[in-house]
Amino acid sequence: MVEYDTVAIVGVGLIGGSIGLAMRERRLAQKIIGVGRRQISLDVARKVGAIDHGVTSLGTAVAEAQLVVIATPVDTIAERVIQVAAKCPATSLITDAGSTKEAIVAAVDAGLAGRRIGPRFVGSHPLAGDHRTGPEHARADMFEGRVVVITPTEHTRTAAETEVVGFWQALGANVEKMGPARHDEALALTSHLPHLAAVAMAAATPSALLHLTATGWRDTTRVAGGDPNLWLAILTANRQHVLDGLDILGQTIGNLRESLEQGDNESLLSILEAAAKKKRDRDALGD
Amino acid sequence: MVEYDTVAIVGVGLIGGSIGLAMRERRLAQKIIGVGRRQISLDVARKVGAIDHGVTSLGTAVAEAQLVVIATPVDTIAERVIQVAAKCPATSLITDAGSTKEAIVAAVDAGLAGRRIGPRFVGSHPLAGDHRTGPEHARADMFEGRVVVITPTEHTRTAAETEVVGFWQALGANVEKMGPARHDEALALTSHLPHLAAVAMAAATPSALLHLTATGWRDTTRVAGGDPNLWLAILTANRQHVLDGLDILGQTIGNLRESLEQGDNESLLSILEAAAKKKRDRDALGD
Repeated sequence: MVEYDTVAIVGVGLIGGSIGLAMRERRLAQKIIGVGRRQISLDVARKVGAIDHGVTSLGTAVAEAQLVVIATPVDTIAERVIQVAAKCPATSLITDAGSTKEAIVAAVDAGLAGRRIGPRFVGSHPLAGDHRTGPEHARADMFEGRVVVITPTEHTRTAAETEVVGFWQALGANVEKMGPARHDEALALTSHLPHLAAVAMAAATPSALLHLTATGWRDTTRVAGGDPNLWLAILTANRQHVLDGLDILGQTIGNLRESLEQGDNESLLSILEAAAKKKRDRDALGD
Repeated sequence: MVEYDTVAIVGVGLIGGSIGLAMRERRLAQKIIGVGRRQISLDVARKVGAIDHGVTSLGTAVAEAQLVVIATPVDTIAERVIQVAAKCPATSLITDAGSTKEAIVAAVDAGLAGRRIGPRFVGSHPLAGDHRTGPEHARADMFEGRVVVITPTEHTRTAAETEVVGFWQALGANVEKMGPARHDEALALTSHLPHLAAVAMAAATPSALLHLTATGWRDTTRVAGGDPNLWLAILTANRQHVLDGLDILGQTIGNLRESLEQGDNESLLSILEAAAKKKRDRDALGD
């Protein structure tokens, strides 16, 4: 990947901060400008070494940026991309780090419709993170060995796709290309549904029994500690696929229930074994 | 706690092995004899320092043991307690480490019915463990700061209860007393249900999408890697409470689904926030 003179990161939370840290550690940019609404987050991001400067004005930040990464909550990304595209150099690349893609990519395509020149956008979703948020938890190795899905469309120019692939690979990620709708369908099952399974389990636990929980409850519910507002936006942006996923999860729980109620040990064991096999198969894929 | 001359641990897997390691490290016994069906597990247990000797004959092992801990799968515990009671000294204490208590305690009470003298049994359940099994994963600090539930009944003599409390406290645990039925009702929600939530989530994930899972899926499904046969026995032994728990979990998932489908963000957010609050409340209780 070529080194950038100036990179702007809009949203310097856990993911935005980690992108900044990773780029600085790998010397991929001369200058990294963080954009945020709250000065205190920008100060933290600068203190941990994720950005060189922090500003609250989007226009100032992106005016000279060759690369702009939008790492804000999913319900604000499309709007930010369109704002950035109006203010950054015409040759710049814009990408994002949103957990959903279909609505964002469609809104950006509509917002930039008819433009044959000007900044290019390619949607991205790094499959990395933590239930903790904020730049203070950012890590330079956040994307090493992780999958980053990119979602180019028929409007995406080859050079832009190549550049975004190079960017994520330079942070150590394995890039996978997928249509935005297919991405959202897959991630509903692999990320959004686990979140809701954890949330349902935590919410269903009586407070009076919390002291009787141990490592099993702790691990199963870990992600339920994530930011409720961030997750509300993700779930809402991927409503139909998540609803379909909840149906599948509900059916699987129903199968478990029926097997247990009827004393059908063979069926119950086969579900337990199928789940254990999925764990082994996933472990075999590595990190 | 008084130091024992001879302790027998029946079943030297993760929990039995950890009890042995913890007792040896804290010099709570002169001699620890492990009892197992497979010589290879006994050899591993001896190699990691969990036991002094390993034998496959129950009678030989318990003949001189003042304390016998049964750490076998739940569907075999009651039978082992009754076998041990027939062969160990009349003044010995027998306890167990089973994840369910009601059926075990009832079967032992029935099996030893009418005896006014002889070995005493008090049911125990250390809320500790790991999804990995086997003595090779045993840890001397497995019970430090953990809750151990003991389930004495109306037949339990005070001296026996005091002794079993002292035993677990000597391993660093916090002992909580509870009726066997109440234990099973609580643990259905705090342990057995999280296991099934993890199993359902893992089983519901298509194999073709496993490479698109990240830390959220990994944590939520971690316990689903546990031994299917051990869990079949636990779920079967606690059938009705687990069925009730599955109904509660199913209802919570139904509430999530309805809120999302109807675009009721207020309701959806309130469930996400309730779950996050349970996580904070649990964290505040410490390990």
